Amino acid sequence: MKPQLKIFKIGGGIIDHVPDLLEFLRLFAKVGGPKILVHGGGKGASEMMANLGIAPRMLNGRRITDEATLDIVTMFYAGKTNKQIVAALQSMGVNALGLTGADGNVILARKRPVREVDYGFVGDLNEESINTASIHQFLAMGMTPVFCPINHDGQGQLLNTNADTIAASVAKALSKEYKVELHFCFEKRGVLADISDENSVITRINLFDYAELRESGIIADGMLPKLESAFDALQFGVDKVIIEHALYIDDALNTTLCLK
Amino acid sequence: MKPQLKIFKIGGGIIDHVPDLLEFLRLFAKVGGPKILVHGGGKGASEMMANLGIAPRMLNGRRITDEATLDIVTMFYAGKTNKQIVAALQSMGVNALGLTGADGNVILARKRPVREVDYGFVGDLNEESINTASIHQFLAMGMTPVFCPINHDGQGQLLNTNADTIAASVAKALSKEYKVELHFCFEKRGVLADISDENSVITRINLFDYAELRESGIIADGMLPKLESAFDALQFGVDKVIIEHALYIDDALNTTLCLK
Repeated sequence: MKPQLKIFKIGGGIIDHVPDLLEFLRLFAKVGGPKILVHGGGKGASEMMANLGIAPRMLNGRRITDEATLDIVTMFYAGKTNKQIVAALQSMGVNALGLTGADGNVILARKRPVREVDYGFVGDLNEESINTASIHQFLAMGMTPVFCPINHDGQGQLLNTNADTIAASVAKALSKEYKVELHFCFEKRGVLADISDENSVITRINLFDYAELRESGIIADGMLPKLESAFDALQFGVDKVIIEHALYIDDALNTTLCLK
Repeated sequence: MKPQLKIFKIGGGIIDHVPDLLEFLRLFAKVGGPKILVHGGGKGASEMMANLGIAPRMLNGRRITDEATLDIVTMFYAGKTNKQIVAALQSMGVNALGLTGADGNVILARKRPVREVDYGFVGDLNEESINTASIHQFLAMGMTPVFCPINHDGQGQLLNTNADTIAASVAKALSKEYKVELHFCFEKRGVLADISDENSVITRINLFDYAELRESGIIADGMLPKLESAFDALQFGVDKVIIEHALYIDDALNTTLCLK
């Protein structure tokens, strides 16, 4: 039987609010067994760019990661955010190890090819991107890998990668060796049937439900790519995907996704 | 017989000049056997502080690491510099792993006690600071640890530590298991008998010579604490300490320090 592994992903919303971040980390510290944390970036990088007078480059509403932006997000995500999380977890008895994809060559990304749009230094992942052997060895040492959304291309170039994508890719790759539970944590208790009612959590969604919810427009906007990644992960062998509130990961109320 | 381990320390001068840094890394990549890199910070952090309008706090000519400074140096040293070095080494075939002291709890520092001066978030090291077991495991995985000058206190606080001190402390601690060669790399070919003559390298200095050179004033200023650390390391079991030019680490001309 495969050993259990729990992977948690937290986003910018909670990172920007330090008391909430620490409360999440306290709950995460109590999770038993091997575990991994993946964090996104917060508003800090954009604020610092504004303070330095660096204007964000946008194209069709999407941010372009130019060299100046990459420098700042690398400093913020891999430096400040990652190391503050690691130091906090150490103080809570978790032997955290902060990682970009370059460290130990754990994640190898490919610069997004230029088609209509040049997104700049953005890294996409594929099936071969995740170095499962190294991650497995860190876990076997009793360490808790903490991934920030910075990877590399193996040619010396750092690249920015979406944190949901990293969490789903790591979960898929490790599902060959582990029974993986993937937790997407955000500011709601799960997928809501009624966006104006925080208590209208849909507790279980399978692929059939998902198609219906998407057609009816109940699942839309930012939730769509998250659920796409989630169902993709389930189809590639991840055992369970849970969407939940970052401050209630110890609570039973959440949305569990399953294939059938 | 103990296995060999080579530890290299590079400082701010070379970090600020990217072509030189890459040339050093190419030479470092060719060094055989288990190895460790320790890097200091460059001018980038001070420049960024100036651009953000944060004035450095100085006291008696020494910089005070207040919270704003710690934030910036953590971003720069642990984020930008460390990850650029790691990504570059990966492209050169070295399986580098970037570390602060918090990562894997590899170095535990103690905030410098406030006596006449409060240096702020500066971390001192002692004999118990270095987690040799974890460093040994990373080396056994074929990885090359790359330390930046940021550590933690185990209570969630990050601290800034002098990179020479980190290099000497890691060298001393690992000398129980390894035959350690410690290389301090800087902008000269070694300790110079005549500061105005780059070719006046003193190729060998023992403790007796050191006392004489110090009294005669030939060794002074910034070189003194470096040599103090170096002889301290030798007395605690480090096999050899070499002071050399970062761009000529493959060359025989350097200063080798020894006890007798």
